[in-house]
Parts: sequence; structure tokens; C-alpha cells
Amino acid sequence: MGPGDRGNKRDFFGMNIKTGVSERRPALKPRGFLRTVFAMALVCFTAPACAGGSQSGGQQYQRLVDEFRDAGLTGEQGFELLKRITSVGPRLTGSPGAAAAVDLSLRLMKELGFANVHAEPVEVGHWVRGDAEKAEIIASGTRAAVPLAVCALGGSVGTPDRGLTAPVVEVQSLDELDRLGPRLTGKIVFFNRLMDRRLADSFSAYGGAADQRVNGASAAARHGAVGVLVRSLTFREDGNPHTGLMQYDPGVPRIPAAAVSTFDAGVLSTLIKKEKAVSVSLRMNCRDMGRVASANVVGELTGTELPDEVILVGGHLDSWDLGLGAHDDAAGCAASLEALRLIKAVGLRPRRTIRVVLFMDEEFGGTGGRAYVLAPQRKGERHLVAAESDRGGFAPVGLAVGGRDGKVLEKIASYGSLFKPLGVSFIVPGGGGVDVAPLVEQGAEPAAVMINSQAYFDVHHSALDIVSSVHPRELELQAVILAALVYILAQEGT
Amino acid sequence: MGPGDRGNKRDFFGMNIKTGVSERRPALKPRGFLRTVFAMALVCFTAPACAGGSQSGGQQYQRLVDEFRDAGLTGEQGFELLKRITSVGPRLTGSPGAAAAVDLSLRLMKELGFANVHAEPVEVGHWVRGDAEKAEIIASGTRAAVPLAVCALGGSVGTPDRGLTAPVVEVQSLDELDRLGPRLTGKIVFFNRLMDRRLADSFSAYGGAADQRVNGASAAARHGAVGVLVRSLTFREDGNPHTGLMQYDPGVPRIPAAAVSTFDAGVLSTLIKKEKAVSVSLRMNCRDMGRVASANVVGELTGTELPDEVILVGGHLDSWDLGLGAHDDAAGCAASLEALRLIKAVGLRPRRTIRVVLFMDEEFGGTGGRAYVLAPQRKGERHLVAAESDRGGFAPVGLAVGGRDGKVLEKIASYGSLFKPLGVSFIVPGGGGVDVAPLVEQGAEPAAVMINSQAYFDVHHSALDIVSSVHPRELELQAVILAALVYILAQEGT
Repeated sequence: MGPGDRGNKRDFFGMNIKTGVSERRPALKPRGFLRTVFAMALVCFTAPACAGGSQSGGQQYQRLVDEFRDAGLTGEQGFELLKRITSVGPRLTGSPGAAAAVDLSLRLMKELGFANVHAEPVEVGHWVRGDAEKAEIIASGTRAAVPLAVCALGGSVGTPDRGLTAPVVEVQSLDELDRLGPRLTGKIVFFNRLMDRRLADSFSAYGGAADQRVNGASAAARHGAVGVLVRSLTFREDGNPHTGLMQYDPGVPRIPAAAVSTFDAGVLSTLIKKEKAVSVSLRMNCRDMGRVASANVVGELTGTELPDEVILVGGHLDSWDLGLGAHDDAAGCAASLEALRLIKAVGLRPRRTIRVVLFMDEEFGGTGGRAYVLAPQRKGERHLVAAESDRGGFAPVGLAVGGRDGKVLEKIASYGSLFKPLGVSFIVPGGGGVDVAPLVEQGAEPAAVMINSQAYFDVHHSALDIVSSVHPRELELQAVILAALVYILAQEGT
Repeated sequence: MGPGDRGNKRDFFGMNIKTGVSERRPALKPRGFLRTVFAMALVCFTAPACAGGSQSGGQQYQRLVDEFRDAGLTGEQGFELLKRITSVGPRLTGSPGAAAAVDLSLRLMKELGFANVHAEPVEVGHWVRGDAEKAEIIASGTRAAVPLAVCALGGSVGTPDRGLTAPVVEVQSLDELDRLGPRLTGKIVFFNRLMDRRLADSFSAYGGAADQRVNGASAAARHGAVGVLVRSLTFREDGNPHTGLMQYDPGVPRIPAAAVSTFDAGVLSTLIKKEKAVSVSLRMNCRDMGRVASANVVGELTGTELPDEVILVGGHLDSWDLGLGAHDDAAGCAASLEALRLIKAVGLRPRRTIRVVLFMDEEFGGTGGRAYVLAPQRKGERHLVAAESDRGGFAPVGLAVGGRDGKVLEKIASYGSLFKPLGVSFIVPGGGGVDVAPLVEQGAEPAAVMINSQAYFDVHHSALDIVSSVHPRELELQAVILAALVYILAQEGT
């Protein structure tokens, strides 16, 4: 950015072409004898002059951000935190794993030297998958039965003990159900609409297909269906079913709902086309166990001057019960803990309180986020910013900050040059999430690190969401960015 | 971007905050009962209004880019091309695999319907790894021998048949050798400087450590060393050695050079500290087989109006002999082929020629790039842009375009709104690479899609660079971006 352009608020990462060229970095892929070649290969990826932002602001914090980066990228300590959190196993709300995660998080925050470490009660649902989860396309003519890889959707009722067998009707949308009407009576409805691969943004593709999982059961039950199978929400063709929350509408019969792997969804669809009349048997003994006590886990670096003004950073401690919830959302918890660890490691004491909250129950109803705002401890506190990390542990690509007016966005954008070398190529309005939504409703500004999402739904809510699917440096960059973001906000406010 | 700001060339992805907010996309992580929550979670990641660029330009090409995207992201055809290329196995210059890759590429380009498909001769080096590649820390006192995972560096001489055993001296830099001087006589020098993890840009960290691999052997041999071991150039701690080119200086004894896995580099370093006198035995029968004939493979969509003006896109067909060179650089070849396939699939006939060149010998001396500019076919041709994809198949994050003046950069930046939804969050000067360097020297503008590089060196030049390390959509996005880039350039020139 040219020296005369500091005031241009739209120009977060605008580039002065001439300056950018003059600030080229050393070669990208250097080799002795071809070194000069690489002088052409350069981008000013990391050159401070490439990014917008106030020069004085950048200088004020640059040394600190360098220290966050050096401490954050060297020892894989952020990744170690992820390994610790996932070490308790899956953390479905109400489960022993979730309880162990609360205990572990309290210990971790104390180990890390955070202040005011405590748990805050949350009442959560307790649904269990049970030990039977089995489906097959029943034999027909000379064809043997074909097993289907399925998993109960979160919140589903089970089938009768002996299972449930019914003819299958394949549909692509909830709207199609109305057209089929009475033909669905006694049937298992098979929702097989794919995530739209043409959408480059994976979250949009997920959002466009999730109604089948969330609302499919009740929509089908209104027409007399006895069960639903839903194609797993992923772009990948493989044998892993992906679970996730489903909801029953009041006053409609509660019918069992299962996800089927994308590979087996293809098999089922092919057989339906070929044989016309295809029946599936489904047996699941998942069940609801009522409400149980759980907790959010809270710790902080208490503000030296304005302790009641809070910059919150957090993720959710609960996960689905398949896999280890490594990306969703041990990654967000680890990045948040690591952000505070970095600020402490550098020896900083923020003016305002920087608080980490590991929320319970993002996945099963959002009770943790609501309990947090209602807790007696909130009295007299004012939350300026609530940054939720719940987009996985993949490589950071941008920042989303502020939802109401542009002031906090302008402030962070003015420090764009600090974030650019960490992979933050855009700063836009946004942020937020299930856990911090109640805070945002009360006036807190949302914030979030934006993450490369191309592989997220490969693992999301499935047995593939394990530690080895997270790249240490990608996670650690998120923590470094969060440390810089929340520290600046704690010093300057919104 | 506000309507009054069209002319601001620096504002590639500048954001009009108000407009950005008003253009929010549907929810990121929607669930029925919490749908409203997600209205807060939005960024205008993909909203056209978020990106800069000329409105008319955007409109002129938007439909085509949408078609590229739809065709590119649906059928995993780009990924299929990568699987085809890697199906011949490793493709070290001069090897049977490289020859098979030339034949396959000619077939592939003809299958895809490209015009003027042909091979152009390149004389390349032919170095073979041999069948013995073994190192161990020799037994000492009661300690047994400790095996080390090693691989010969590309171009290294072998050891004597019986192997080579010598005391080891660990150093961190080439400079350190001068200080040690005569103490290195008869020793194996162990270069153990780590890639600097503090550098967020992995390519910079690689560049800062690669001198050990490229120049270490001759630097050590000047002081009488008899062999070198070099810590593998990767951030990961694992048992995979990473190869890569090394060079001998003229007039200095040629001594054997091997990479050792990062894990075993740690073992060796620990034992050196503990035992002081540690010897290693090394046996390798790699050898140089002289020069052999090979080829670049060329195909094109011939320009309808200006066929002699060429927009070149390409990668390199050769790879290292460990792994399959999936990221380095089957990915670049597949993305380039797929870019032309997409342009053809959409039914477009470019004004200028769009040419794909799969270069031979990026890794072993860059002979292919030099042969290309000297080929008789170049007579009367003018290369406007040379886009090389050699940064792996990970997620695209930006574009680097143009190295001499800002004109082509300005042009592409004016179409920023077309690229932004595909993951291109910045457009900066740069581009280039080994293969296109001779073209750039003659005046062609370099260009490249910039890629998330955090995991690149995990697999680079090692047995881990296999098909499963490439994500189909991440590769396909690169191809879509390339298709849009080269088509616009073919229509408009520079």
C-alpha cells in the first residue's frame, strides 16, 4: 500500500503494484544454479508492504506478533493440545467422554497458568447410539442381501428390537415428498440429494443439502413414512457414514433416521433403479436418556485495567461420537487455548480480559452458549468480541470480524499487514457461530479465522475426523492469528 | 466494491464494508432451529460484490467461468488426469517411467482433442539410484548398530562397493565447515540444520535450508570429507528420507551424498552428543549413466485470430524416483491439461493459441525449459504469458502474475471478482519457475496459481508424494482458475 493510502478503508490487502514488486521476498524454490530463475517466481506473500494497514499500528505490534509466531510454530504445542483433548475419546454431550473432557480442560487450563479457571454448569441432552446399527438391502430373487454402512443420526429414535423392514422410496428433496404424498405410507424414504460439487465453497454445498438430514425425518413422517435414510453430507465417495443432528417436529410421529455412506447410497440408488421394488431392513437401538448435568470450561488472562471488559475466544468441547472430533472441534479448542498460552508465554498482560471458553454442546442443541450468557458470573461483565473457532483445523485463509457496523472490522483491517504473513489474505465482515450467538445477540462483535474448507466435509461428523487428519502447522497458524487478534482487541477495545 | 471505485488498481480485493454486509451468502453451518444464528456467521467469501474488478469485465466472462467451474468440480476429471499421469510410476529424467510418461501424455492430449500434439526432443541426464542404499551408525561398546533411513541425493556418486565407513561430524551450516577446516579430513559431514519452523511460508523455510543439500557435498569435500549426510528438507519428524538435486563443483572431489530422514537425523545427533566418537557406514551404488534422449510434450488450442501469439500453461512431467511425484508435479501437469480440456468442453475457441507444455527435466537440470525456447517450432511464435504450475496440488489461495511491469497484473486484477469465488484471495506480481524461466527471459510474462504450502514439504521428493496426498477438489480448483486465467489472456493479450 502506498504511503498516501492509509485512510482507504476498503483497501485491506490492496496492493501498490510498484511497491509490491520492489518488496519481493527471496526465491521460492531456490537451487544454487538456478537461483536467478526464482527471482521471477516471487510474490510478496509475506512482504509487509504488500498488505494494507496503518504503518504505526503494524510497527506497534509487529514484534509481539513475531514472538507469537516464533513460539507458536516451533514446538507443535498447539498440536499437542489437540492430542490431549482428543485423548479422552469422542465427546458426545452427556457421555463419559464429554465429562472427561471437562475435567481434562480444567486441568489443562491450570497447567497453562490461566486465571479464574472454573466450570460453569450446562444442562445437556444425553443421547446414546447403542450397540446395534445395521442396515441391509434385503435379498431379492437370486440376489443376496446387500449390507449398507449406516449410522444413526443424532437424536434419532431407535427401531423396534427386531428391526424395521420396508420398501424404499428415493427422493432428492423435501419438496418431492408432497408430490409423492400417500405413496410414502409405510415406506423408508431415502434422501439422496448430493452436496452440490459446483459450489467452490464447501460450507455452502453442505448448507444446501443439510435440510435432508435435519428435517427429513419429520417431513417424511407427515406422509406416513416409517424411517429415513439420508445420504451422508460429504463430497467423498467412501464407506464412512457421517452423522449429525436431526430434529423432530412436535406432533409428528418420531421415526428412525440414519445416514448412509455415499458409496452405499450409490449402491442403493442403483438397485432401486434396476429392481424397482427394493426393501431395506434397519435396526438401531439408539435412544434418548434425558437431560444430564455438564459444563462449559472457562479460564482467562484477567485484564489489568478493564477486567470486566472481555474478549472471548473459544471452541466447543463436545463432538460427535464417531471419530475423535479432531477438526470438529478439538481444533478450535486447541487453537483457543494455544492463543492464550502464546500471549502468556510472550509475557504479556492484556488491558482487558482475554477469556477462553470451551463450550459444551455445540452439536446437540447449543445449550452451552445459552448457559454462558445466563450464568451469574456474567453480571457486570461486558463482552466486546466473541471469537469462535469452529471451521476445522485446516489452513487459515482470512479473517471475518464484526457483524453490526464496520468499526471493529476497520480496526482489524488497519492491522492487516500483521496478519498477511500468517496466511490471512482477506479481512471481511462476519464471524460468529452457535456457541457465541447468544453473546452476539447481546451486542458482542463476532469474529473468526476463516479456514480452507475443501477437505472439511471429507471428515466432518465421521470416523475419519481423527488426529492424523489435522496438520500441525495449519492448526498452529490459526492459534497465532487468534493470539494476535484477541491481544490487539484486548489492548484497544472495539 | 463501490460503484465509484472501478478505476482503483490497487484495490484488487478491497471491500466495501457496507456492500459486503448487504451481499451476505446463505448460512455457513445451517441447522433448522439455529438458522438465524448463522446469519451472523457469514462472510462474503463468494459474493461478487466483495471482490474488486471491472464490472463489465466480470460480466463479460462470468458465464464462462461458471461453466469452467461447473465442469471442473463435478466429475473429478482433473483428478483422473493426475491418476493417469502417475500410473506410469516415478518419472525420473532418463528413466523408463519418464519415457512412458511422454508416450502417455501424447496419447492423453490426443484423447482430449488438442491440436498439434507432438513431442519435442530434450537431452537429459540419466542418473540411477541403484539397488543398494544402506546406512548405519556402527556398533560401539555394548551398543548395537543403529540403522538409518537414507536415500542418495540426485546426482550423487555411489560409495565403493564395500561401502564407506568414517567418523561423523555434525554441522549446522556450510560456513561452519571453514571453521572446522582440517578436522573434516576423512570424515562424513552430517548437515543437520532444520528448516526454520518460524517461517510461516514453507517455501522460504525450504529455501533457507536447501544449500546443505545442493552444495553441501562439494563444500565438505574441499576440506577432505569423504561423504555427506543431509537432514531431509521437511518440517515433519518421520522415517522418510527426501531426495532432491545436489551439485558438484568443478575441480573438487566428488563424494557420496545422502539424505537421512528427520527422525533418524535426530537419532544420529543424539548419539553424537552422547558418545562423542560416532562412525557411520554408508553404501550406495547410484551412478550417472550419461545423457539420453527425452522430450517435452506439447499440445494446444490453436488461436483463431492470432495463432502465433501463445499463452503457455504447463508443469513438469519428470519427478523424483521416490513416491509418484503426485504433487511434484503430476498435479501441475494434470491442472494444465484439465484447464485446456475445460476451455474445449465449454466450446470455446481462443483468439490466441493456448498451449500446454509438459516439460521434461525440471528436477535434474532444467534442460526441457531451455530446449523449448530453442526448438525450431518457436520461430515466428511470440509467447505472451508462461504460466507454470509447480507448487503442488493443494488448495489455491492466490494468483501471481507478471514480472516486468504491472500491465498484465492490472488486467488480471481487474477481473478479480471472477477469481475470488474460486479461492483466489490475492493477486500479486510474480509467477515463473524453472521450466518457463527461459521464456520469461525472452519477454514472456510469468504467471502462477499460488497454493497453500503448509503440507507441501511433508511429501516433497519423498515416498509420501502419492496420489492419496492430493485432494481432488483442491487440484480441480487450480485447473478452473488456470482455465479462466489463460482464456482471458488468450482473448485480450497482455
